[in-house]
Amino acid sequence: MRLSTLGEFGLIRKIQKLLKVDSSVIKGAGDDCAVVKLDRNTYQLFTCDMIVEGVDFTAQDNPYLIGRKAMAVSLSDIAACAGIPRYALIALGVPAYRTVRFVDEILKGLRDIARRYKVNIVGGDISRSQKLVIDCSVAGVVEKKYLLLRSGAKEKDIIFVTGSFGGTRAGKHLRFTPRLKEARFLSRHCKPSAMIDVSDGLAQDLGHILYASDKGAILYESLIPKSRQARDMEDVLSSGEEFELLFTVSRKKARALYAKKNSCFKPIGEVTDKKYSLTLVRRDGTQGKVIDKGFRHF
Amino acid sequence: MRLSTLGEFGLIRKIQKLLKVDSSVIKGAGDDCAVVKLDRNTYQLFTCDMIVEGVDFTAQDNPYLIGRKAMAVSLSDIAACAGIPRYALIALGVPAYRTVRFVDEILKGLRDIARRYKVNIVGGDISRSQKLVIDCSVAGVVEKKYLLLRSGAKEKDIIFVTGSFGGTRAGKHLRFTPRLKEARFLSRHCKPSAMIDVSDGLAQDLGHILYASDKGAILYESLIPKSRQARDMEDVLSSGEEFELLFTVSRKKARALYAKKNSCFKPIGEVTDKKYSLTLVRRDGTQGKVIDKGFRHF
Repeated sequence: MRLSTLGEFGLIRKIQKLLKVDSSVIKGAGDDCAVVKLDRNTYQLFTCDMIVEGVDFTAQDNPYLIGRKAMAVSLSDIAACAGIPRYALIALGVPAYRTVRFVDEILKGLRDIARRYKVNIVGGDISRSQKLVIDCSVAGVVEKKYLLLRSGAKEKDIIFVTGSFGGTRAGKHLRFTPRLKEARFLSRHCKPSAMIDVSDGLAQDLGHILYASDKGAILYESLIPKSRQARDMEDVLSSGEEFELLFTVSRKKARALYAKKNSCFKPIGEVTDKKYSLTLVRRDGTQGKVIDKGFRHF
Repeated sequence: MRLSTLGEFGLIRKIQKLLKVDSSVIKGAGDDCAVVKLDRNTYQLFTCDMIVEGVDFTAQDNPYLIGRKAMAVSLSDIAACAGIPRYALIALGVPAYRTVRFVDEILKGLRDIARRYKVNIVGGDISRSQKLVIDCSVAGVVEKKYLLLRSGAKEKDIIFVTGSFGGTRAGKHLRFTPRLKEARFLSRHCKPSAMIDVSDGLAQDLGHILYASDKGAILYESLIPKSRQARDMEDVLSSGEEFELLFTVSRKKARALYAKKNSCFKPIGEVTDKKYSLTLVRRDGTQGKVIDKGFRHF
């Protein structure tokens, strides 16, 4: 069977079934980060993201921004769990024809974003490879009481996002800000019931929350913040790589969050019974099921 | 400047200079593992190794053994620091033409070696890529008193190895045993002054110990265990990927280690003043400087 027949998520579920973990593992593969016991009040978080030339960036992209992105995507995963990133390892595969200057720029991109978020790059590995590939693994911490996962969304919870959606290929995917600060704020002040970062498309990543929480949802087209570069609603729902936060909060907390002046948190819909799956209410009042066209590797 | 002009180690030193770490980091890039504070008696270890098709294995190699190797190389780094591996993340880049069966075999290879050494695979990332690439990051722990590094070798210390050297391309590089058990034994019972695993060639990796410890060494050809597949002494010194332990111990402890029956630890030479750099005493009694021909990516 070809990988494309099974599909990316089929493959991921296969992997999850194969793996056994011991009781120190609170959450293994299947959330934004792995969560393991650290001490009485704290969990440790682990995540890694591999970015590959020709898939996540082009050979012509600015190497400084490629380096920056390599770490930013993993920091966004730490944010999705409301954690604090601490240590990073960088595995770098570089084609032999590349110049030292090119690699220098990648390293500066990595260094600057690491400094910005007080992440220690503690090691890594460098290898020859045919195409540029960077895998950034990050270890972080989160207080037990602040941990957020994809599961936990409840019926009638309000769905919120940060930022705007669509048209990320115009360049935003190389320049986004991992929402670490916003995630910490949320976790401390209004404890969402579930959270994820939008890497593969708003519809697909909301789908992950709904799948993990065994729920459905209704989204309102008129409420979803569109980026200037967005083409149309399909693009808004499936563009991916916004690396914005997508989270659900109880109605009571939603009211407080909504009342906040100049809030960067925007409500876009609500959690429902599973039977509604993912429904979009269009501007004209008509409804339709959202078919997930987000990014898949296979 | 081309990467090949600067060379792999020039590049690594460049990376090390670029990075700043905070006081929680005991040892950053430049040893087998990064070492960070965990609690009063324990350090956490981090390491990652990326293996790439066409460099570390061929497209025709058995996928089960490729998966096994991907994790074994990182476990060998944990062994070199005398640590206990705990958690692993796997980033997998797979060409779209590969079959599900092929990926299944890789995963089984990873799973089996993880089980064997009680490592929890807690997550990862899967991506399309042109050539198969696997990055395995491992977090481990080590009691402060047992930690071993590359630095610390002292004049007159005896240099020991486990296993035999040379001819690894014949297949051993896919089937080696990470020396976790032996490393723990050593650390508890005879506390070496320095330790490393042989990934890039006996001469090159001994060079790392000597560089980090500011020392030289004399090796005796007649003492170095040759594998059956080894071609000649140059191959023995530069083959690499044996993933055996290479360590130095004081003379007093060396005597006890040498006296042990059926010991897998073999003395091969001694640590000297830096001025001797790395000298080989041949079977015929002549001496020569060892020129490092070990593996380099660039």
